[in-house]
Amino acid sequence: MRMVDLIEKKRDGQELATDEIKFIINGYTDGSIPDYQVSALTMAIYFKGMTERERADLTMAMVESGDQIDLSQIEGIKVDKHSTGGVGDTTTLVLGPLVAALGVPIAKMSGRGLGHTGGTIDKLEAVKGFHVEIENNEFIDLVNKNKIAVIGQSGNLTPADKKLYALRDVTATVDSIPLIASSIMSKKIAAGADAIVLDVKTGAGAFMKTLDDSRELAKAMVRIGNNVGRRTMAVISDMSQPLGFAIGNALEVKEAIDTLKGEGPEDLTDLCLTLGSHMVYLAEKAGTLEEARIMLENVIKDGSALDKLKVFLSSQGGDASIVDEPSKMPQAKYIYELDAKENGYVAEIIADEVGTAAMLLGAGRATKESVIDLAVGLVLRKKIGDQVKEGESLVTIYSNFENVEEVKQKLYENIKISTTKVDAPILIHEEITQ
Amino acid sequence: MRMVDLIEKKRDGQELATDEIKFIINGYTDGSIPDYQVSALTMAIYFKGMTERERADLTMAMVESGDQIDLSQIEGIKVDKHSTGGVGDTTTLVLGPLVAALGVPIAKMSGRGLGHTGGTIDKLEAVKGFHVEIENNEFIDLVNKNKIAVIGQSGNLTPADKKLYALRDVTATVDSIPLIASSIMSKKIAAGADAIVLDVKTGAGAFMKTLDDSRELAKAMVRIGNNVGRRTMAVISDMSQPLGFAIGNALEVKEAIDTLKGEGPEDLTDLCLTLGSHMVYLAEKAGTLEEARIMLENVIKDGSALDKLKVFLSSQGGDASIVDEPSKMPQAKYIYELDAKENGYVAEIIADEVGTAAMLLGAGRATKESVIDLAVGLVLRKKIGDQVKEGESLVTIYSNFENVEEVKQKLYENIKISTTKVDAPILIHEEITQ
Repeated sequence: MRMVDLIEKKRDGQELATDEIKFIINGYTDGSIPDYQVSALTMAIYFKGMTERERADLTMAMVESGDQIDLSQIEGIKVDKHSTGGVGDTTTLVLGPLVAALGVPIAKMSGRGLGHTGGTIDKLEAVKGFHVEIENNEFIDLVNKNKIAVIGQSGNLTPADKKLYALRDVTATVDSIPLIASSIMSKKIAAGADAIVLDVKTGAGAFMKTLDDSRELAKAMVRIGNNVGRRTMAVISDMSQPLGFAIGNALEVKEAIDTLKGEGPEDLTDLCLTLGSHMVYLAEKAGTLEEARIMLENVIKDGSALDKLKVFLSSQGGDASIVDEPSKMPQAKYIYELDAKENGYVAEIIADEVGTAAMLLGAGRATKESVIDLAVGLVLRKKIGDQVKEGESLVTIYSNFENVEEVKQKLYENIKISTTKVDAPILIHEEITQ
Repeated sequence: MRMVDLIEKKRDGQELATDEIKFIINGYTDGSIPDYQVSALTMAIYFKGMTERERADLTMAMVESGDQIDLSQIEGIKVDKHSTGGVGDTTTLVLGPLVAALGVPIAKMSGRGLGHTGGTIDKLEAVKGFHVEIENNEFIDLVNKNKIAVIGQSGNLTPADKKLYALRDVTATVDSIPLIASSIMSKKIAAGADAIVLDVKTGAGAFMKTLDDSRELAKAMVRIGNNVGRRTMAVISDMSQPLGFAIGNALEVKEAIDTLKGEGPEDLTDLCLTLGSHMVYLAEKAGTLEEARIMLENVIKDGSALDKLKVFLSSQGGDASIVDEPSKMPQAKYIYELDAKENGYVAEIIADEVGTAAMLLGAGRATKESVIDLAVGLVLRKKIGDQVKEGESLVTIYSNFENVEEVKQKLYENIKISTTKVDAPILIHEEITQ
């Protein structure tokens, strides 16, 4: 088998066979196939696509290129959730304790990563003492005991995907649905999930800007999952504006606590209940989605979701008293309000740019070496469709710098006020199960 | 400027600017842009093409990536000829002395190369003593004095093209008209030609199998040449069967001598007169193509073309007596006839495969290390459309091995005899000047 013939085959729109895809991924992983042949192939894939069979084969070849996490010692159906990423997305912090309170095992491997705010682990480090450096055995035991634990990324998971993603990033072949879908799914499958709930964001603040593209990606991932024997579904949710109110690490932990108390932002609560219902249903803890949703609402009401958060935090060394006293988490020195300059309705909150404003405060990492300030960030006081009066606060800014003029400037530029009434965006666009 | 953005621009079908193309070629030549980005770009070009302006810019960027031959000390308009390659193509050996006899300066840089037979230099080495290892000064003086000289490839010509071609070869991006056209034209322009006559082959034995593809390539090259200020035209000529009769080094030199005497194969003679007319016309030695053709026919008739060959050979150390006594060139030990097995008409002579049969005898190089046997090869006795009787010779085989069964087998398989009359193929399909 020669790589050049396989590139030509794909270039000419033909389907690559299972053993051909394995040959490519194994050869790329072990270095016998060079970057320059793989980048020509990915560009051919960009133009010619991949069939469902090819996508499933690519995913599994990447899964098999490295270690796979063995969660077989955990009782029950392990359901993982993945979000394609957005701004102010606090769902993971809420969903974990929420569904664990219903006995769904949450064995989460999580990372730090670049972005407007930190990753899930960074956010949790706003809780004093909390750590994810635990052994695999302890991790398994904790999940069996508490139904929830988080461990830092370890092992050599999907090295082919890592190598391929780095290559795509510098060769303008990131924007290919089959490659995006296989990349995401390979990581989830290697991490040991039995079933997967995907939160595919759509809108200006998302990777996929249009509903059509988001739907195509969602379907691609759902089909890969189901084709390789992992029950998979996707929710397409709005990211035309940031989700919830808080953008920042400790601020988001507080928002998650509020949401688990039943006092969170409406959109975040609704999305968590929707995603959570699917997780509970796939874990076979409820017979219908409706039943699952009611069960979730009940564990919020009766306080058991909030209790689960406390158990989770303290079992990994965290100070669970912050749940009742969030002010024990890192606090910003300066608090400013961004006052509306005119009367009207909020028409746009450009999520990307608002996220960048939070990063300017220190809430996220621009490079791997950046140090995150856990205390700082933004809390939106108005969202799209809300009426606003001149002088009312649009955003509260939490900063450790005295001068936030640059941040204010960026926020003013990216929060548009209209004189005519504006509808709030639809939150849940579609739910895709096949 | 970032290469990834330029790949994306081309991927999205936009036109690259002149400075962007220079950035790419300069960066690739100096190693600051890696293979894996260039191969992604060439695959994007495969799908999205290049505009006329981009092609001209790419050609000139590759010309400027290395040395350029300075032929300014040679009087007159230097016209170069290039063939896209075929089997038994003896035109260069004929055309050089033919147009030089009319005062057109032929300053030829030539190579060896892989293929069914050797390159022009290999063929000329069938003439005892002939050599191309001459200094630039001597080369220029010879052309000014005799109007013809050949020098071996030297200097660092179009390094970007060499690097790019090697990359395209292993990434399935050879078959791209803009890239093929720019590659060929960059080499001709760097070699110092003022005007260029292209012989674009078409048919089963050619790189371009269909007339449409050949026309597209011809037009692409003609437009590049004219857009960068070199008068350029192309002839599209038949390569559904080998050109002329001889395939082999000394055998082709003999055929060239015959043709310069006016006793050569009809197709080879006709093609040389057609290409030669354009060369003479572009060199402004004749006012019309018709006039040029008559002048060429006259230098064949009056012997001055043959005399020019003698002067050319002897001035570079060659034994010009072989022109009158071709048997002084290397001779094969064994001569066999391939007898027709049936009555009928020659319907097909699959040029590629017949060329491979010549290579099996040792006439060409399979790898750079192969040693060519200058004596051996094939002489076709029948061509497409010819009537043939059982037992008549189809091909004479010149070999230094006693056993030529494998060669005979290959020839029988690739020379098809039909019971019904077959027309000879059209030799000159089109002449393209813009």
